[in-house]
Amino acid sequence: MSEKSNAKELIVSTAARLFFSQGYHATGLNQIIKESSTPKGSLYHYFPHGKEELAHECIQKANEHIMQKFEDTFAAHESTGDAIQRFIHDMADETEAAGFTGFLPFSFWAAVETSCISHQLRVACQGVFANWQQIITKHLMMEGVGEEKARETGLLVISLMEGALIISLTNQDKQPLLTAADYLSGVAKNAREIQ
Amino acid sequence: MSEKSNAKELIVSTAARLFFSQGYHATGLNQIIKESSTPKGSLYHYFPHGKEELAHECIQKANEHIMQKFEDTFAAHESTGDAIQRFIHDMADETEAAGFTGFLPFSFWAAVETSCISHQLRVACQGVFANWQQIITKHLMMEGVGEEKARETGLLVISLMEGALIISLTNQDKQPLLTAADYLSGVAKNAREIQ
Repeated sequence: MSEKSNAKELIVSTAARLFFSQGYHATGLNQIIKESSTPKGSLYHYFPHGKEELAHECIQKANEHIMQKFEDTFAAHESTGDAIQRFIHDMADETEAAGFTGFLPFSFWAAVETSCISHQLRVACQGVFANWQQIITKHLMMEGVGEEKARETGLLVISLMEGALIISLTNQDKQPLLTAADYLSGVAKNAREIQ
Repeated sequence: MSEKSNAKELIVSTAARLFFSQGYHATGLNQIIKESSTPKGSLYHYFPHGKEELAHECIQKANEHIMQKFEDTFAAHESTGDAIQRFIHDMADETEAAGFTGFLPFSFWAAVETSCISHQLRVACQGVFANWQQIITKHLMMEGVGEEKARETGLLVISLMEGALIISLTNQDKQPLLTAADYLSGVAKNAREIQ
């Protein structure tokens, strides 16, 4: 049983790595089977509907990982602005450490590439962005920001974070992420005053 | 001669449409030849280095088109803030009119997908983003914003614009773009005061 679970985890982690680094289209099931060193039957056993079902699982796993990271970062900081700044600084450092290659932002492969392919995957990605916006909105409201302003600020935070990541990857330079992080720190801090 | 130029234009416009709607990986040369209704020899005549060279031409054409649109929008508005707001509102309307499908943001297919494939294409995309940032920076400076603040604001504008487009496409809803447009209008207007 634990060997079987292990095969499933290996398949998902390998698929996620390949989807995130090459994109959905460029990743074939045979490559996932080969690079995960699992028997061909395992993939079809766990994901009888194939590539789309496997991509859906990868989106859920990525979301869980990122939501946990948001929770941890919020727990470690007094203010929402400081937490957002830290979160994006960490993203910048991780992207730089990975050499700006072999890494696609979540939004890239999942949200947009798969939007053109599959309604199910697009809806899953929409749910992920909604989760991210909600957690930021919740923390801003806990600081006393009104709901409408908190929602709008949450949307701006995730929009700017995703866009800055794309420019950083293109330029192979973490400055766009750092500029966004510092700027958003101020935006979150001012949200209460300027509403 | 004009028939030949016409074949080249047909190839480039067909390739751009396919790259922008399906991504780089999913688009093959045979599909471009078939959908452009040009002889196979034409594509190899104009683009002897194949798909990468053709994608490079599409990036340049897209950049020319967008830079012209920036110039026209700036010429039609008194303030940089108003021009940026109009530019992004137009983008939102066009995306909605296209049904939020069959359309990838420039950043998606070109900047990130091709970054993983080709140094040449990545550098071309880096140049495109630099052009967009420069034109915004130039207009902010013409309004009296200091150079450093103008550059930083230009970077924030393109980052937020690209990120909001991704969220809009994912959600099939133009609200993220409209929120970004209205917000950036204020950011540009305040750039002079808060520097």
